Amino acid sequence: MAIPQTNPASPPLAGIVVVDLTRVLAGPFCTRVLAQLGARVIKVEMPQTGDDARAFGPFVNGKSLYFASVNAGKESIALDLKSPSDREMFEGLLALADVLVENYRPGTMERLGYGWDALHARHPKLVMASVSGFGQTGPLAPRAAYDLVVQAMGGIISVTGTEDGPPVRVGVSIGDLVAGLYTALGILSALMMRGRDGVGRRVDIAMLDCQVAILEAALTTHLTGGGTPRRIGSRHPSIAPFQIFRTKDAPLVICAGNDALFRRLCAALGDPAMAGRTEYASNELRMANVSALEADIEKTLSNLSAAQWLAAFEAADVPAAPVLGIAEVARHEQVLSREMVQCVRDPVIGDLHLAGNPVKIGGLESAAPTPPPELDADRERILAMTRSKGTPGS
Amino acid sequence: MAIPQTNPASPPLAGIVVVDLTRVLAGPFCTRVLAQLGARVIKVEMPQTGDDARAFGPFVNGKSLYFASVNAGKESIALDLKSPSDREMFEGLLALADVLVENYRPGTMERLGYGWDALHARHPKLVMASVSGFGQTGPLAPRAAYDLVVQAMGGIISVTGTEDGPPVRVGVSIGDLVAGLYTALGILSALMMRGRDGVGRRVDIAMLDCQVAILEAALTTHLTGGGTPRRIGSRHPSIAPFQIFRTKDAPLVICAGNDALFRRLCAALGDPAMAGRTEYASNELRMANVSALEADIEKTLSNLSAAQWLAAFEAADVPAAPVLGIAEVARHEQVLSREMVQCVRDPVIGDLHLAGNPVKIGGLESAAPTPPPELDADRERILAMTRSKGTPGS
Repeated sequence: MAIPQTNPASPPLAGIVVVDLTRVLAGPFCTRVLAQLGARVIKVEMPQTGDDARAFGPFVNGKSLYFASVNAGKESIALDLKSPSDREMFEGLLALADVLVENYRPGTMERLGYGWDALHARHPKLVMASVSGFGQTGPLAPRAAYDLVVQAMGGIISVTGTEDGPPVRVGVSIGDLVAGLYTALGILSALMMRGRDGVGRRVDIAMLDCQVAILEAALTTHLTGGGTPRRIGSRHPSIAPFQIFRTKDAPLVICAGNDALFRRLCAALGDPAMAGRTEYASNELRMANVSALEADIEKTLSNLSAAQWLAAFEAADVPAAPVLGIAEVARHEQVLSREMVQCVRDPVIGDLHLAGNPVKIGGLESAAPTPPPELDADRERILAMTRSKGTPGS
Repeated sequence: MAIPQTNPASPPLAGIVVVDLTRVLAGPFCTRVLAQLGARVIKVEMPQTGDDARAFGPFVNGKSLYFASVNAGKESIALDLKSPSDREMFEGLLALADVLVENYRPGTMERLGYGWDALHARHPKLVMASVSGFGQTGPLAPRAAYDLVVQAMGGIISVTGTEDGPPVRVGVSIGDLVAGLYTALGILSALMMRGRDGVGRRVDIAMLDCQVAILEAALTTHLTGGGTPRRIGSRHPSIAPFQIFRTKDAPLVICAGNDALFRRLCAALGDPAMAGRTEYASNELRMANVSALEADIEKTLSNLSAAQWLAAFEAADVPAAPVLGIAEVARHEQVLSREMVQCVRDPVIGDLHLAGNPVKIGGLESAAPTPPPELDADRERILAMTRSKGTPGS
């Protein structure tokens, strides 16, 4: 068991050792967050191939940027959990670990002899977190799932896209990413409980559960108030005007969520009388007449460029923003000033750019991560640790 | 300061008191998560109006379902932070609190006399978490932001939607929700640090930072490998076939992320020869020829219904799923078996349905929440607590 750090400048998870069996995204995103919070993350990978994501493009000099984007700051050891000698080394790691994270299909860990009951008996302080498509319980538990499966079954696709267009995927793997965040929350929660009583616990996160948890008011609205939220393009389901609009050139967003902001918007558009029109007199009326409102606003917006309108809205203190592409986000002065783009030197890729840590805690520096590990790169150091600090089953 | 619970069956945040100044969604979603993890959340609201979200529809018997969906399990007291007598009561609350959460525009807390330096001097163990559009630092810090602003500026909109269609909003307020999750992570982190040294810390979460953190491989791909990810409808940027397809009736998703799954898919489609075609021989080739691949697959899918194909894919162990609407998600047997839909009796609304807690920890029951509070409903109980357990500044 790791010795807790007491230096006040230590990061939140200083001294915490995470043994990480996860592959692809939901689990690795969770352990990336744990590494950013200061944990030591030891990635245990299959010999030869390693994490499946090592084979996902795009590649630079043969190394996956997909893998790199989520595995920086971790160490790697290759172990075959079906080989007796490798299993012994794995037990040595578990004896040192505070947390084990895995995202196999439910049942796999039991078949390997690492089910919760067996592990808890041998390592009573160990926290074990599992993230799977449907969770460890329920009729669909044994099924494999992927991000797109839980996006589709969790309802978010049914409310994303234009009214008359096809259903579209949320453009990032939100099913994996949100599950990774909830798994990190579950692990911190279990560590806090262990801090009180010394007992490790099992954390069971289902990607589908997490999608249900982020449906915002849609679930309550449907089950309690009737009505079924559907795709409405760029509009907000409860507020107007609060959407994307076209201008002479590029799109922009306007968020005028209350009457005072709507009056300011009308004035900035050069049409203060619009605020006094009875059909737009309240948010409820603006919602009821949202198509006409959208047409009225876009008619005026079509006269000038997005940049000109954004300057006018900023002067009038009307919340508005450009729709930025990845290239613009990556170079935005606010994003850079918050250290949300980090650069590390990777021996294969060269300069590697990564998203920073959004959890900013006063007095803590945002440390630069180590580059994503080559498969098995940290084997000797990790095994030396198990020999010097613990014995299997201790 | 609350007395830590030692009962092993207590939830992770048992004994933690959260004073909650937040409004609308990012902050209230964070404190909903904290309440689900067992914290006592005391919502401090403006007299007369309360949380702005109380005015957001839809309504049942005059009560907002939007507000209800995210504020169950909390208590409410109305205090005017500009009134001297109310400020005294607020100080009494802070003296009892472990955590203060706020989502005002940066600078507001300082103007009220509750900036971090002043608070930390008076309440050195208090954790203060702020969630704002752009964070407490950087050139855009003073600006107001809303979910759609950070969706637009954070890049997620630029990768969501069809190639030739308009940009669309992610259909839930992912800018607020992800920021709420990161704020909860920051608070648990700061509580763990306080557990080591007894010192409260400032947590500073920017909604824009959180959007950058969930760009998956897009940021790294652009800055390190060149290329700019764009909207591609329902397709995955790195894997094929991994998207939504049309059938004879409803859409479905297929996730055949590797060669073995692709062979199984081709067999299930009754076209095993497709797996042997040179243009589809690897994921890289399938990505390069994805339009032809999509057309080939949809041609076969058009012969049968989604239900028929899903049965065939299940039998063949090919990952696939229906695209469910909110009504189907809310009644899905897996979702219900995981207790992800809870029902509480609200005195105004009647039976109120809410999303459950996706953080499942072994040995902990998922407790039913109390209904969302009426404005100021818990005033007497909260003030009695400040009189009996602490004095301002203690």
